Amino acid sequence: MLNNISKTAAIDARRYFDWAASAPYNCQCSCVPFGNPSSQHSEGRQAKEALEDARSRCAAVLNVPSQTLYFTSGGTESNSIALFSNLMRKGQGRVIASMAEHSSVREGIETIEKMGKPTGSIAVDFAGRVTADLLEKSLEKYGDVRFVSVMAVNNESGAITDIASLRDVLRSSKGPPIHMHCDLVQAVGKIPIDIQSWDIDSASISAHKICGPRGIGLLYLKRPLEVFYTGGGQENGIRGGTVNTQGALSLAECLEKYAASDTVKTEYQLAGERWKRLIQKLSKMDRCTIIPSERPLKEEDGWFSPYILQAAFKDIPGEVMTRALDDLGFAISTGSACSSSSPERPVLTAMGISEILRIEGVRISQGWTTKDTEIDLLIYAITEVLKFL
Amino acid sequence: MLNNISKTAAIDARRYFDWAASAPYNCQCSCVPFGNPSSQHSEGRQAKEALEDARSRCAAVLNVPSQTLYFTSGGTESNSIALFSNLMRKGQGRVIASMAEHSSVREGIETIEKMGKPTGSIAVDFAGRVTADLLEKSLEKYGDVRFVSVMAVNNESGAITDIASLRDVLRSSKGPPIHMHCDLVQAVGKIPIDIQSWDIDSASISAHKICGPRGIGLLYLKRPLEVFYTGGGQENGIRGGTVNTQGALSLAECLEKYAASDTVKTEYQLAGERWKRLIQKLSKMDRCTIIPSERPLKEEDGWFSPYILQAAFKDIPGEVMTRALDDLGFAISTGSACSSSSPERPVLTAMGISEILRIEGVRISQGWTTKDTEIDLLIYAITEVLKFL
Repeated sequence: MLNNISKTAAIDARRYFDWAASAPYNCQCSCVPFGNPSSQHSEGRQAKEALEDARSRCAAVLNVPSQTLYFTSGGTESNSIALFSNLMRKGQGRVIASMAEHSSVREGIETIEKMGKPTGSIAVDFAGRVTADLLEKSLEKYGDVRFVSVMAVNNESGAITDIASLRDVLRSSKGPPIHMHCDLVQAVGKIPIDIQSWDIDSASISAHKICGPRGIGLLYLKRPLEVFYTGGGQENGIRGGTVNTQGALSLAECLEKYAASDTVKTEYQLAGERWKRLIQKLSKMDRCTIIPSERPLKEEDGWFSPYILQAAFKDIPGEVMTRALDDLGFAISTGSACSSSSPERPVLTAMGISEILRIEGVRISQGWTTKDTEIDLLIYAITEVLKFL
Repeated sequence: MLNNISKTAAIDARRYFDWAASAPYNCQCSCVPFGNPSSQHSEGRQAKEALEDARSRCAAVLNVPSQTLYFTSGGTESNSIALFSNLMRKGQGRVIASMAEHSSVREGIETIEKMGKPTGSIAVDFAGRVTADLLEKSLEKYGDVRFVSVMAVNNESGAITDIASLRDVLRSSKGPPIHMHCDLVQAVGKIPIDIQSWDIDSASISAHKICGPRGIGLLYLKRPLEVFYTGGGQENGIRGGTVNTQGALSLAECLEKYAASDTVKTEYQLAGERWKRLIQKLSKMDRCTIIPSERPLKEEDGWFSPYILQAAFKDIPGEVMTRALDDLGFAISTGSACSSSSPERPVLTAMGISEILRIEGVRISQGWTTKDTEIDLLIYAITEVLKFL
């Protein structure tokens, strides 16, 4: 029955709609000097030059000074370096994060709590965003906040948080300055970002979400931090371990290719048109609920990233829908790959989504090479699945 | 003057003698599935299969069960995961490491101390080895040791520590069991290792020391540990962050190529012959001191890895010798690349090497493709440098 669909000429290849988990690799970077950038000989100096070249290129795309960027093994490590610097901070002060953060932040907060530092949370609205109001409420409630972690684009709902407005709240709060950390993993290359004008203190970026290799990411630090663990003292003592020169050059290439501000604007527009089409068609399906249900009305207002969509299909658990579509050649997911081992959907819970919709929820995410025809085929495939399930 | 040497036909190319810092990349691995191994769709399952294939291949070479191996971003991270599990351990108990450990361990110990757990050190002998006697003394001195970190091959002196004898000491000590962590970064592919019969609790391995890429390594854990930070729960909750499938497959390839026990034996023999030749020639130079000076007598006894040599040249600071040889096309180093930003030589200090020899000390390290002729050229180049400096 379902297999009949895949026999039609229309569905003859894989269609990848899980870009938020990992993007297809598209990186030419080669001829990388093999020396250890920390070595003093020619091979080492060449590697060091290549590494610093990579850093400058990343800095140019992100419009920040080179020396504020540190290469790490990825977004998870960047988040953890920023978070665990709190364990080295003298004096008291609470570390708080939104309830819709990536698991690497949520679990980092748990570790900080275990180590005896006070932590706390910031509620999110129905879309999964932290608003200025919600942040203010958390600051008031705790009274001793020194570190705030908020993601720019939610990896499950696609909600875009207005980082600049949160920065204003932190600036106007009384007491010692509050560090603002921003997980930009689903934002870079997807929505316009402006680290400098947002005036955040730290940020995380991952290469493999923008068609780069695994095992490389960036930590932005406005000012150097005392980190929990320096390892071999590489990256100015911020991240230990022999630096991944090849990864750094690949990341620079991908940032230039996908995250330059003109490209982001053009692609945002195109992705938005494809997403509007998808959301309109899904909204017309009786059994489909867009999550949050208010999203179709807010799509024009830039509340959501046009690269991520969460939706539920009545009486079909997310896992079943994912498997059915997979059989037809479509890769979607039931949520963050980083939480896929757990049936919980903490982000959706924080958004106030009902248990039944949490069970039925699936995430569809697109990228730069996604075609209009693929959107149509996905709609067609979903329609067919709904006939049989 | 010195440049005349490089004009001779004999020295017409770069000769790399810093394999201990990073080995030349030699890895064919390609066609890696791009999916996120944590995703449930076909792309994810293919990536997961590739990842588990890589793990099984690594396990086969290392002769350990697959499920004891966890992919990390490299040796430094593997060391830190093992070390920081102590912060999660209930109850008291001291964490100790040899005074000649890699900086990633030494600085990890400092972090543990800062977090309020008691730490301590184990002295090393003149070669940089921990002996059964020295370990026993440390255990007696502290009385509350629960975790010991010792490296198998010292990255500066090349000294080989007899891990099995240390395990015996720990086994026969009274009180609760003591975890034994072993940094195998300079041992894998270089000397015969036997994780199972050594019966160690954890071990670290890095890919880029065996011609693999940066950003990938292995942590061996006899039994799962409660780790300090789980991130996204990947690798059975031992190491968070999207797993580097490409890196894992490359590491498996390099382990098969360089660390299979037959290859290790053959290459150990060949490397030993080349090193004997180098040490004999250097020993005859008036101004050269092999570090430790007893090494030439112990070379036949397997006290040292035939891949690493530390030596000093009278009246020539290590940095100057490194630069002079670099100008002639030879890459050597003044010590561990991971400590190159610091003028201190803590490993040599721990070995009781005098300040003057510490300043003059250089590290020469070879690999599988090093040729006899390269050894001769290196000797020739050193002789020429000694004429002019």
